[in-house]
Amino acid sequence: MTTNQLIKQIHKKQSFLCIGLDVDLNKIPKYLLNEDDPIFTFNKAIIDATHHFCVAYKPNTAFYEAYGIKGWQALEKTISYLNENHPDIYTIADAKRGDIGNTSTMYAKAFFEDLGFDSVTVAPYMGKDSVEPFLAFKDKHTILLGLTSNQGAFDFQTKCVDGVELYKEVLETSKFWNNSENLMYVVGATKAEFLADIRRIIPDSFLLVPGVGAQGGNLQDVCKYGMNNSVGLLINSSRGIIYASQDEDFAEAAAKNAEVLQLQMKAILSRQSQ
Amino acid sequence: MTTNQLIKQIHKKQSFLCIGLDVDLNKIPKYLLNEDDPIFTFNKAIIDATHHFCVAYKPNTAFYEAYGIKGWQALEKTISYLNENHPDIYTIADAKRGDIGNTSTMYAKAFFEDLGFDSVTVAPYMGKDSVEPFLAFKDKHTILLGLTSNQGAFDFQTKCVDGVELYKEVLETSKFWNNSENLMYVVGATKAEFLADIRRIIPDSFLLVPGVGAQGGNLQDVCKYGMNNSVGLLINSSRGIIYASQDEDFAEAAAKNAEVLQLQMKAILSRQSQ
Repeated sequence: MTTNQLIKQIHKKQSFLCIGLDVDLNKIPKYLLNEDDPIFTFNKAIIDATHHFCVAYKPNTAFYEAYGIKGWQALEKTISYLNENHPDIYTIADAKRGDIGNTSTMYAKAFFEDLGFDSVTVAPYMGKDSVEPFLAFKDKHTILLGLTSNQGAFDFQTKCVDGVELYKEVLETSKFWNNSENLMYVVGATKAEFLADIRRIIPDSFLLVPGVGAQGGNLQDVCKYGMNNSVGLLINSSRGIIYASQDEDFAEAAAKNAEVLQLQMKAILSRQSQ
Repeated sequence: MTTNQLIKQIHKKQSFLCIGLDVDLNKIPKYLLNEDDPIFTFNKAIIDATHHFCVAYKPNTAFYEAYGIKGWQALEKTISYLNENHPDIYTIADAKRGDIGNTSTMYAKAFFEDLGFDSVTVAPYMGKDSVEPFLAFKDKHTILLGLTSNQGAFDFQTKCVDGVELYKEVLETSKFWNNSENLMYVVGATKAEFLADIRRIIPDSFLLVPGVGAQGGNLQDVCKYGMNNSVGLLINSSRGIIYASQDEDFAEAAAKNAEVLQLQMKAILSRQSQ
């Protein structure tokens, strides 16, 4: 999916919500564990109930790898289900990969070609030649970790490198990489006040913002500092939506929580367009 | 496997060689593509032919993920084959993972519990709380990216953070994390002269050193600057060994190249013990 197609979807659905499909078998309704594939059954129910309210889904690969072959099969079934039934939905493999050139190419093939995701998250530590193999794929996005939402972000990301914080150096440097128009960035919502600075460096890029909800980030603040003329934001919520209930009404409860966020986004978008 | 058990194996085999199992179906002998599982067939032949000359194997997960379910199955079969037939061999999942706390725990479970690897490589960008979930596993090692072997290492890793290069800040900071005795570090062989500085920061830790061979690193230099009293080195070679031949003699050719490195290591160890 191209950036313009994503922007169209945002305006059509009046939503820039991304739902994180981080399925932990200890947290889903117990009765689903009797299913052949509890992870996919859960995801399908969540997708069926929430797809009107969001523009993107983001499975975090860790939650699938933890269940081995069965987990990887559930991931394949989930992305296939999305691509077949909801081709207008943007998909993100939250994988935080990154390796030397020929190896990054293999990761890019895994997520873009084999699985068919629209985008993948990538870590910047290994630099330009670890990220460019992802950027080489046409109409696919590489979502680079900028400033993450966890406490550990303060260990290295906010340290000063040649007088500027490391995460800003990452943002600035990445603009000069080949096919950098295919970049988006992860910026944690728990640090909304940093977004004004970030927008000065990358005014036009889309930001994937985790940490709204369970991690404490505030939607209004993120939009105030982070929104641009093309919206430029995908706000992710995982646990706050998919674990809204652990009973048989889990999908309905997820839809309710997704709708609450979508309505807030609709209001923000309508204020922006005035 | 504990660090002491690894050191014993190094002295017993007179080798600190790690063989990278980075299987690319475009590079293995063509006739293997007719096999049900060409990746595992290739790995099994390489392991059977080379295990006398090395103390560790390191599959890079990218090369398995690129082939989807079949690739993941080949990875499972490879680690199971190693654990069942060669329990004295140290195993490294070269996965370069790292995420917020609860997610890193899922990755740690995937590699340590589900697959049964002795260690996994982890990226430092997200800081302490992204690495400590790996470190919490007893008798498992977390191999943190320090200074990598690629050109992109100079984009961020060697930039000065508060007056010291970022990779040194990563090494120094990580020493204070919970269960830091379970840390090892990735240090690229293409920058052997950096090893003297690195040893001043982490004198006792094991270093996993990629980049000898195909990437241009020199074994003698790495040992000169990087070896400590417990050897403290695992030298990885991937392409230089596993793709020594693309004909029916591929396993034999791999064994020959592995033996060349092992004999060099034996000579170095015997000089060290004099």
